Amino acid sequence: MKKLQYGMVGGGPGAFIGDAHRRAISLDESAKLVAGCFSRTHEKCIAQGELLGIDESRCYANFEEMAKAEGAREDGIDFVVIVTPNNTHYAVAKAFLEAGIHVACDKPLVTTAKEAEELQSIADKNNLLFMVTYTYTGHVTMKYMRDLVKSGEIGTIRTVMAEYPQGWLYDENSWGGKQGEWRCDPEQSGRVNCLGDLGTHVENAVYTVTGLKVKRLLAKMDVVVPGRKLDDNDQILVEYDNGATGVNWTSQFCIGCDNSLRLRVYGSKGTLLWFQENPEEVILIKEDGIQRSIKRGYGAVSADAAKYGRLPSGHTEGWLEAMGNLYDNFTDCLVAVKAGSFDKAMIDYPTIEEGVAGLKYVEACLESNDNGNVWVEL
Amino acid sequence: MKKLQYGMVGGGPGAFIGDAHRRAISLDESAKLVAGCFSRTHEKCIAQGELLGIDESRCYANFEEMAKAEGAREDGIDFVVIVTPNNTHYAVAKAFLEAGIHVACDKPLVTTAKEAEELQSIADKNNLLFMVTYTYTGHVTMKYMRDLVKSGEIGTIRTVMAEYPQGWLYDENSWGGKQGEWRCDPEQSGRVNCLGDLGTHVENAVYTVTGLKVKRLLAKMDVVVPGRKLDDNDQILVEYDNGATGVNWTSQFCIGCDNSLRLRVYGSKGTLLWFQENPEEVILIKEDGIQRSIKRGYGAVSADAAKYGRLPSGHTEGWLEAMGNLYDNFTDCLVAVKAGSFDKAMIDYPTIEEGVAGLKYVEACLESNDNGNVWVEL
Amino acid sequence: MKKLQYGMVGGGPGAFIGDAHRRAISLDESAKLVAGCFSRTHEKCIAQGELLGIDESRCYANFEEMAKAEGAREDGIDFVVIVTPNNTHYAVAKAFLEAGIHVACDKPLVTTAKEAEELQSIADKNNLLFMVTYTYTGHVTMKYMRDLVKSGEIGTIRTVMAEYPQGWLYDENSWGGKQGEWRCDPEQSGRVNCLGDLGTHVENAVYTVTGLKVKRLLAKMDVVVPGRKLDDNDQILVEYDNGATGVNWTSQFCIGCDNSLRLRVYGSKGTLLWFQENPEEVILIKEDGIQRSIKRGYGAVSADAAKYGRLPSGHTEGWLEAMGNLYDNFTDCLVAVKAGSFDKAMIDYPTIEEGVAGLKYVEACLESNDNGNVWVEL
Amino acid sequence: MKKLQYGMVGGGPGAFIGDAHRRAISLDESAKLVAGCFSRTHEKCIAQGELLGIDESRCYANFEEMAKAEGAREDGIDFVVIVTPNNTHYAVAKAFLEAGIHVACDKPLVTTAKEAEELQSIADKNNLLFMVTYTYTGHVTMKYMRDLVKSGEIGTIRTVMAEYPQGWLYDENSWGGKQGEWRCDPEQSGRVNCLGDLGTHVENAVYTVTGLKVKRLLAKMDVVVPGRKLDDNDQILVEYDNGATGVNWTSQFCIGCDNSLRLRVYGSKGTLLWFQENPEEVILIKEDGIQRSIKRGYGAVSADAAKYGRLPSGHTEGWLEAMGNLYDNFTDCLVAVKAGSFDKAMIDYPTIEEGVAGLKYVEACLESNDNGNVWVEL
Repeated sequence: MKKLQYGMVGGGPGAFIGDAHRRAISLDESAKLVAGCFSRTHEKCIAQGELLGIDESRCYANFEEMAKAEGAREDGIDFVVIVTPNNTHYAVAKAFLEAGIHVACDKPLVTTAKEAEELQSIADKNNLLFMVTYTYTGHVTMKYMRDLVKSGEIGTIRTVMAEYPQGWLYDENSWGGKQGEWRCDPEQSGRVNCLGDLGTHVENAVYTVTGLKVKRLLAKMDVVVPGRKLDDNDQILVEYDNGATGVNWTSQFCIGCDNSLRLRVYGSKGTLLWFQENPEEVILIKEDGIQRSIKRGYGAVSADAAKYGRLPSGHTEGWLEAMGNLYDNFTDCLVAVKAGSFDKAMIDYPTIEEGVAGLKYVEACLESNDNGNVWVEL
Repeated sequence: MKKLQYGMVGGGPGAFIGDAHRRAISLDESAKLVAGCFSRTHEKCIAQGELLGIDESRCYANFEEMAKAEGAREDGIDFVVIVTPNNTHYAVAKAFLEAGIHVACDKPLVTTAKEAEELQSIADKNNLLFMVTYTYTGHVTMKYMRDLVKSGEIGTIRTVMAEYPQGWLYDENSWGGKQGEWRCDPEQSGRVNCLGDLGTHVENAVYTVTGLKVKRLLAKMDVVVPGRKLDDNDQILVEYDNGATGVNWTSQFCIGCDNSLRLRVYGSKGTLLWFQENPEEVILIKEDGIQRSIKRGYGAVSADAAKYGRLPSGHTEGWLEAMGNLYDNFTDCLVAVKAGSFDKAMIDYPTIEEGVAGLKYVEACLESNDNGNVWVEL
Repeated sequence: MKKLQYGMVGGGPGAFIGDAHRRAISLDESAKLVAGCFSRTHEKCIAQGELLGIDESRCYANFEEMAKAEGAREDGIDFVVIVTPNNTHYAVAKAFLEAGIHVACDKPLVTTAKEAEELQSIADKNNLLFMVTYTYTGHVTMKYMRDLVKSGEIGTIRTVMAEYPQGWLYDENSWGGKQGEWRCDPEQSGRVNCLGDLGTHVENAVYTVTGLKVKRLLAKMDVVVPGRKLDDNDQILVEYDNGATGVNWTSQFCIGCDNSLRLRVYGSKGTLLWFQENPEEVILIKEDGIQRSIKRGYGAVSADAAKYGRLPSGHTEGWLEAMGNLYDNFTDCLVAVKAGSFDKAMIDYPTIEEGVAGLKYVEACLESNDNGNVWVEL
Repeated sequence: MKKLQYGMVGGGPGAFIGDAHRRAISLDESAKLVAGCFSRTHEKCIAQGELLGIDESRCYANFEEMAKAEGAREDGIDFVVIVTPNNTHYAVAKAFLEAGIHVACDKPLVTTAKEAEELQSIADKNNLLFMVTYTYTGHVTMKYMRDLVKSGEIGTIRTVMAEYPQGWLYDENSWGGKQGEWRCDPEQSGRVNCLGDLGTHVENAVYTVTGLKVKRLLAKMDVVVPGRKLDDNDQILVEYDNGATGVNWTSQFCIGCDNSLRLRVYGSKGTLLWFQENPEEVILIKEDGIQRSIKRGYGAVSADAAKYGRLPSGHTEGWLEAMGNLYDNFTDCLVAVKAGSFDKAMIDYPTIEEGVAGLKYVEACLESNDNGNVWVEL
């Protein structure tokens, strides 16, 4: 029991992602939810707060009030979780950072790189931690692959095939319910849909595993399903800072692809394969050509990665555990901050720097696509 | 928030299964832990209680005291979770049932069918709910298969190949740590090891999916790894009450098998395949021979099963979610009991009847094996 | 070009297995078909011979005549391929052996162990080679597994789960066409159906890979699909000569199982997995738990096995290549016999000894089943 | 027995592809090899001819002589198989076409589109059949997918992810033996290596299955492994004539990729997945999200595709069977030509038109890459 307390902005009734964050935190009891602004309507907020066991006095009418009040309380929240639509992240995060409160914010961080850098600068100035919840990077297997790459197990990386197709928006007669509607609406999502929702995961996942940064890219962003106004299929040629090449692909109309984030990393001495829908397995192939399937829970997995596992091998962990792992490390860091023992080397969660990189990636893709699929340097 | 409170017997520091039950309950915040007897040593119990945020006054020196005290409190626990070694389940469960407290108990229920039936009779008499946590039956996919069978989708079942091999005890120079030691020790485990630990899961999983009960069986139970004293490999011929045949196999020395509970159910009109290490997939094959992979989260999954899912398809759920599903239904039932609206048809968790059946299965296997692998009727 | 010539008994129009043997031999041009008795009707025989480019004078009215004539010719056939129904194998093989002609015969060899031993004795006396075409043992991967076991890679074998379910006879309203009809007919198949057709493959495959011989067994043979008269599902407990246990399972009504011969061999130091429908892959798991997928064509595969491959890895070989491998070695041996350089150590095909073992296995199963599923020693 | 005779140019001792063509033809005994120019050295040619059972008089010193002689003989070959290095295909094919002999030629057809079109025009003028052996298109499953697409089963195609990575040239210290050396040598291979060897298969496979033609493309062709002089990794953005997009990827340094031609076709009503290393399976996903695995040999497979199968489902066919299927149809057409009953609708093999399209694809990629990865129209 870390005895941390948190608040949430967003996460009203029926909101998938707010519910998921709460469950991920509950899983390890990393912190206790004590305050919230769960809805734009105060009554709904209070009603949701009651269901969640939150005192009415800490169910706020708006996030500005919440930031101020919680920042002022002696027993105020240790951190805030932001799970509102993307286009509001900036204002909410800014309010809490300025109130001196640490932030965990869903991805994509904000809607422009400029805003992202501004948040980064406030967080830095105020010595506040800021996590961007790229959930998939929390998997033990992702951390294990990162360690394999670092140790030189697959040599110099030569090409990376990364993709994240989904299929839920394939139907021109359906907008995918509440979740799909705001994503496909330029008013709420800005200039990108698929690329912001999925493409930033791809960019971040490759970075997490390989440490490679995109040096330049050439993006083809298409609006394919009749009636859509924003991109729903993005095929992007990439060059990384070490000279490696790659293709990043995201889509929302691929029937049969549920949530198919997949990484294939080819190095001079070996290959790594990973598939989000089977998240506990890493496939490693060395020069002998033998395909090795290594699972979370095996002795082979590096200690830095393995420590996040809760269950023995064969007892499956999933998506919530991945997010829980992020919160586990984030709250460990917060405990250390409170105890005065924090050190940046403790950080093993996606930081705001990665959130900034995601926005720059998106903006470069837009620039490339708007100019007829030309190379854009980052 | 169901506003239920529970206590735990067992689940001290380092105990895998107690920790798992707590996490599974936390995942959905189905109930709040408020009391416990976590260790045979009172100091250790109190220390563990402090870590878990339990008031010292409700950290009990022994389970008898706990049952009495909690049974007497106005705000006493709604149910107890029993996660002690198998040979103590009987006494603990009896104490709480007699104190009028509902029980969730890990499997195998107890060590003899006689004890099991005695508990069942006390629970019945006192109108108390009693769940046996056969975790795997909590998976959405298990419930979906059950519904497929009921609806006649695969016709009359003809044979069932069910197995649960593990590999962690393959090494004659290792006893598998704390977990392995008590399982392999006749003093603590009684007359069976592998069959009690894994075989009862197999028997229960087949029953859950097919509704078939074992009519007679012929068991070969072997002690294979040098130095072991109890069975570590069991190969059992089975006949079910509808005339179908089957083989149940469990083992603890199969290198490469992590936790490989697998069901293959062959009917006159179709086949169902399920593998615990990939627990979100059901494979259904009909007379056209096409192998259909159906995942949790799909529209195809029956509503009674699908309702347990927390995340969209492609966002993996695992072992803790399966256990969480059991507690979700169990606590729903308890809420109904408190509200006076309970109806037996609400039960969708493994009951003490199934615990009793598990013990009878074990005893029949022992009888068959002791008599030279002969048929034994159940 | 080995310049060998062969004849065929059986393999008329529409006969699957005769056609398959001819293709497998053609694949490597191991021998040239020059004579045959393809049908019981002489006209049909001649017609089929014409399609196959056989001179009418060598299209025989019956096998006795063929054996005599070919045995007498200076340029007579080097070997005969017998692909008639099982119950005729004995007479045909005997005729050719007595005419001094080498024999390749489809499995199961004959219908009783006594007949099998008689053929073996004639072959031995006449110094003739006799191959029983257990096709699956021809796969490079089977030979590789055999070498892995011999080299101690998986230690002492502890248990073997072997199975061969098919699904084509699941339907009580269908007898599976010509192929199914004779197999299900006691007149033509004798006392067993499924066990003879599939069970002998299982027994032989385990022997080929592990070198283990069945010491005793306990068989449950069931007639399940309504209307059948012979076994269509066999579940057999086995003990091997080294003390290892096992289950052998065969079935013909398992919807979705095409031709699902599968071996799982568990040793004290590792595990081998093999599945006929994916025949170019061996899965090897050692004590580190990592699942290694090794394919035909890899450097890892032992030279004695790898030499049979025709194509680079990734260029799939299949069932005909497996049978071709048997003929490749069989004809190599025949060439050596003709050259006077033959040595028994050259043999790498299933011999008549293995055919005899298959019959003994079948007879022991029948004895066990007839006596209420009791142990029978071999 | 079709009673056709063929000759071969190339296919000397140790030549993989010539041997493969011979085996594929033998498999079905579609034609008999009676003449050849197997080597540039006459003695070697004669020696190889002897091994293959070819009369010395028809083992030619050079292809020009062979074309002339065979064209003049009354019993001359019905067709020639060309399996020499790519840069000689043009001259060889031209010689035989001018001698009035039908041609089967390995891919890529020639080295420039101009040459390809010239050959096409000679073949047309002389009424000769010309097959380009894109082996993979011979698989029953490829033909089945083509039929599914044609029948509208997956609706309008939206994007196609096609790839063919191999790994055998990953090592900068190895040139991959004889096979790799000529492919990596600009003198022998011209301006492309990987794209010619693998990229043309990708382009043709997509066309075969979908009927889509590339409208424009943007190619990034990289020379990655140190020391190489020609492309070994190609990542290409594609737009098809129906407006669909796609990515075509080929590589030669991807450790663990044996021969990994893979197609993923996403339509408005469904998805098709196919993987060459598991060539007997088509995965079809419809709007219900259920993943259907359909195998060669199933009733579900269209009759036009199924007719090529030789073995029941579960009896694996592989790469040689795929090539055999091409020859099966090609020789059926030749028989019809000889009988005067030929009709173009009979053609079910890759024609010279497809060979021409392959060259145009390669040239467009080179143009795009040379100009800094710009769009090039076809």
